[in-house]
Amino acid sequence: MIGIDWGTSSLRAYRFAADGGIADRRDTAGGILTVPPGGFPDALRAVAGGWIADGETQVLMCGMVGSRQGWVEAPYLPCPAGLDGLAAAAIRVPFDGADVRLLPGLSCRDRHGVPEVMRGEETQLLGAIAAGEAEATACLPGSHSKWARLAGGRVTGFTTHFTGEAFAALSGHTILARMMDPAAPDHAGAFARGVARAKQGGGLLHHLFGLRAASLFGEIAEAEAASFLSGLLIGHEVAAALEDGVAPPIVLIGSDALTARYAAALDAFGVPHRAAGPDAAARGLSLIAERLP
Amino acid sequence: MIGIDWGTSSLRAYRFAADGGIADRRDTAGGILTVPPGGFPDALRAVAGGWIADGETQVLMCGMVGSRQGWVEAPYLPCPAGLDGLAAAAIRVPFDGADVRLLPGLSCRDRHGVPEVMRGEETQLLGAIAAGEAEATACLPGSHSKWARLAGGRVTGFTTHFTGEAFAALSGHTILARMMDPAAPDHAGAFARGVARAKQGGGLLHHLFGLRAASLFGEIAEAEAASFLSGLLIGHEVAAALEDGVAPPIVLIGSDALTARYAAALDAFGVPHRAAGPDAAARGLSLIAERLP
Repeated sequence: MIGIDWGTSSLRAYRFAADGGIADRRDTAGGILTVPPGGFPDALRAVAGGWIADGETQVLMCGMVGSRQGWVEAPYLPCPAGLDGLAAAAIRVPFDGADVRLLPGLSCRDRHGVPEVMRGEETQLLGAIAAGEAEATACLPGSHSKWARLAGGRVTGFTTHFTGEAFAALSGHTILARMMDPAAPDHAGAFARGVARAKQGGGLLHHLFGLRAASLFGEIAEAEAASFLSGLLIGHEVAAALEDGVAPPIVLIGSDALTARYAAALDAFGVPHRAAGPDAAARGLSLIAERLP
Repeated sequence: MIGIDWGTSSLRAYRFAADGGIADRRDTAGGILTVPPGGFPDALRAVAGGWIADGETQVLMCGMVGSRQGWVEAPYLPCPAGLDGLAAAAIRVPFDGADVRLLPGLSCRDRHGVPEVMRGEETQLLGAIAAGEAEATACLPGSHSKWARLAGGRVTGFTTHFTGEAFAALSGHTILARMMDPAAPDHAGAFARGVARAKQGGGLLHHLFGLRAASLFGEIAEAEAASFLSGLLIGHEVAAALEDGVAPPIVLIGSDALTARYAAALDAFGVPHRAAGPDAAARGLSLIAERLP
């Protein structure tokens, strides 16, 4: 069986052994934005054709490949949702030589009725649940960071923050861009100062101008400003999530570089956290595949 | 006497009559960003040379023309500051044919010690004070919105929010750009929904993603999204300013289009407000000029 986490800007493919372990893997930058119209079958052949020729007959995919901009749109499955629900909602796509299916993403509503969506993270969450996080809050940092509630083996709801996209837009397309060196390495002290600033009153929009003014007064260096901004935004995200009532401990799922930042921010708020095991998405894909109808 | 409010992207010049009234005025798009290096004297001649040839001998300028990127840098004057302090801090710049002076901007620190700066707004604030707003909170909407405390005839302190710049970056350089029509006219209902959303918990970063998700679910139209985003950001600004302890009534100073949005947001928060009289900057320049040493 082949599992693929096919996102906007990257693709991760796994070939599974009979015992569910990972026999082989490929990471590419071939996200859905790189696929021309009608090009998804060819893109799948390019990454997994060899495994299919070698005898694999089942391909299960998750992520933005199931969005309106992907191969075929797989409508969102409402929370709460678990392995069986996702397996039942997978949709087949036409393909020669293998049984290819797309997983839907998940949707829910926040307490005020505003919609929430995810695509791909649900598979990581179910993998983390299977690895022992049956009752927890999971945080998946990213362009659109997710805070998900896991209970009874299912994802019961989640909240998204626009943190990564806000960082890119504010650091690249405002006057702040002139006062920061985007090539500077991470600066832990400046990140911590940004988190500490987020814990003060005044609001994010006020804190953003304070970064500009601090630069005018020589109170923050170009090499520190991007890390400070990252800490400020992540700090505001964590503060809002905590006010929203997330229950620790927090399970962090994602790249080491990004989860390390969230771990530092959670430390600053005094909130216990731990890292999920590796390859949560692969584990989720494998477990869902076992349940396909 | 000639007064000039010379900002980043625009220039407003006033010729005053002997009684302090406005005898003539010129508005141009010739902000400091349009002036080549060493070009400020020529730019001044272009806008006010005729008035100088006609006998005016005094020119007083405020705004970004006194910044590091302007004609000559006039260091910030710390708050509290009034007419006499600003007049005393004006600096002369070399110019043939008239006594030309630049006003400094103002600086202060917020309650956590983070610096604040303004350039140009101080002149509007002192004009508003002279027009009767001796004890008030003034709000000047813009790219960098200012909330200033006026007491005893002086500006005693102020707080800045990055609202206008954040709107431009988020609406133009994130995935939100794909779901909004920037040419759509203002939509009062969508603006009001954005303000109402800001009053809910969850944080600005969460609310930004909610706008994206609402679009995916067809719950907000392209023609409404920009107005919703404007209401969301202004609502967060107003909420933060109120938490910061600003004392109503709020005096709104600025263009009719922008102050109307803030008036609607303040109404939604139940906070009394009123509009400052017109030409606050001209009044401030005229009064400061009378006090020049």
